[in-house]
Amino acid sequence: MKTRFGVRTTSRTCFVNITDEVAKAASDLGVRDGAVVVYVPHTTAAVTINESADPDVARDIQQKLSEMVPRSGDYRHAEGNSDGHIKSTLVGCSEVVLVDGGELVLGTWQGVFFCEFDGPRSRKVIVGAL
Amino acid sequence: MKTRFGVRTTSRTCFVNITDEVAKAASDLGVRDGAVVVYVPHTTAAVTINESADPDVARDIQQKLSEMVPRSGDYRHAEGNSDGHIKSTLVGCSEVVLVDGGELVLGTWQGVFFCEFDGPRSRKVIVGAL
Amino acid sequence: MKTRFGVRTTSRTCFVNITDEVAKAASDLGVRDGAVVVYVPHTTAAVTINESADPDVARDIQQKLSEMVPRSGDYRHAEGNSDGHIKSTLVGCSEVVLVDGGELVLGTWQGVFFCEFDGPRSRKVIVGAL
Repeated sequence: MKTRFGVRTTSRTCFVNITDEVAKAASDLGVRDGAVVVYVPHTTAAVTINESADPDVARDIQQKLSEMVPRSGDYRHAEGNSDGHIKSTLVGCSEVVLVDGGELVLGTWQGVFFCEFDGPRSRKVIVGAL
Repeated sequence: MKTRFGVRTTSRTCFVNITDEVAKAASDLGVRDGAVVVYVPHTTAAVTINESADPDVARDIQQKLSEMVPRSGDYRHAEGNSDGHIKSTLVGCSEVVLVDGGELVLGTWQGVFFCEFDGPRSRKVIVGAL
Repeated sequence: MKTRFGVRTTSRTCFVNITDEVAKAASDLGVRDGAVVVYVPHTTAAVTINESADPDVARDIQQKLSEMVPRSGDYRHAEGNSDGHIKSTLVGCSEVVLVDGGELVLGTWQGVFFCEFDGPRSRKVIVGAL
């Protein structure tokens, strides 16, 4: 069982909090006690779980990733978005989230973020019951 | 089905071998042939699978992560632990481990490590049957 | 249910496209609608999902990882492959792939890559139904 939802990103690099969409997807899939995988079918985007209370955390992660993997470098891929591909592999294109009593099992400070590394674009996220 | 256990970390950055705790959790959950997810509900910690035979491997991973993501930098998050949040996203907060005949399916040299990036703290790990 | 296949790597660092092998493994496991985990039981290798159309993408990822984690550095592990262990933790040793109607659910540009960081070697990949 799978479902999907769209994410509209508004800048080249940004993190979008998709926790509510993932919770709704788990509910739509009828997962009460189990787990879902949040899967990003893109090669210049990713998904991560990190602090959602202070938006500066997501900003700091993006900033450091861009320092570590600058837009220009020793790249051969002709589309000019090698940095986005590299960040995608470093962060990863899926996360497993446990579900208990119909609710996502997340730590107090955790939220699920869609990570855009080559936007702005219309993206999609697939959620599958495990 | 989920279970959890605690991890007491003793320094700001350290890796704690939790392979035995994960194996016991899989057993407690009654997983004989299948998989579990090892989930860290914290935003300045992570979980990784790497060599457990030589402790220098875990030391080298921590050392390089701290070189790549220093404690001080162009950070805005006011708590002074942005490095921990960034490392958490780079390493990731969950690992899937296969189980066969009631035993974890790990390579010869593999162990499961809880990764502390903002300790010392009392942490917890959630293990869920998949 | 698990199955496995071998990967022969031909240089110290290389990415091998294993998408077809993963699809065959999912089919062999009888997974029509669900998910599999692609698991690498090695500590100096990894698995990632990224663009398979242009081989320069895999080359750029490897190049940047080697810039970030050089072969020589402040390492103590005596085998001279600390870089491989560190890259393994950064990229990760497993990926979850959804399956729908007997086919892997991958984005248009996505392929599954075995990542060798200390070859050449004979490696193996384990695929488990979730």
